[in-house]
Amino acid sequence: MKKGGKRPRTKGEPAFYDEMKKRVNFTLTPTGIEGLDELAKAWDVSRSELMERIGRGVIPVSKPEESTS
Amino acid sequence: MKKGGKRPRTKGEPAFYDEMKKRVNFTLTPTGIEGLDELAKAWDVSRSELMERIGRGVIPVSKPEESTS
Repeated sequence: MKKGGKRPRTKGEPAFYDEMKKRVNFTLTPTGIEGLDELAKAWDVSRSELMERIGRGVIPVSKPEESTS
Repeated sequence: MKKGGKRPRTKGEPAFYDEMKKRVNFTLTPTGIEGLDELAKAWDVSRSELMERIGRGVIPVSKPEESTS
């Protein structure tokens, strides 16, 4: 699928970020997964992309300091 | 199944929640993973547990509505 007049997506090349994504395994309960799916849907992204954005700080997550201080 | 956290951890039994966890695969960039690790460290939990808590709403995450409205 072409995007914005750029080259078509090629395997082995990063799509949105400068780095290649790699597979990470998480162990979650079905309830946890469901909640993540809902969040992902709310942000209109995939579950992985949700995690990616949380990791990059694009989607802000509370930090313990914030709730304690 | 015994409950109450007294018994040693047994394989095949849930440790903290009432459900068995299952493996989920995410594809993330190293930067995303690093950020998640930092968040996990801040909360003093594992990466998976971080996701679990985010999914369960224990750790609050911004929703698009909140930042748009």
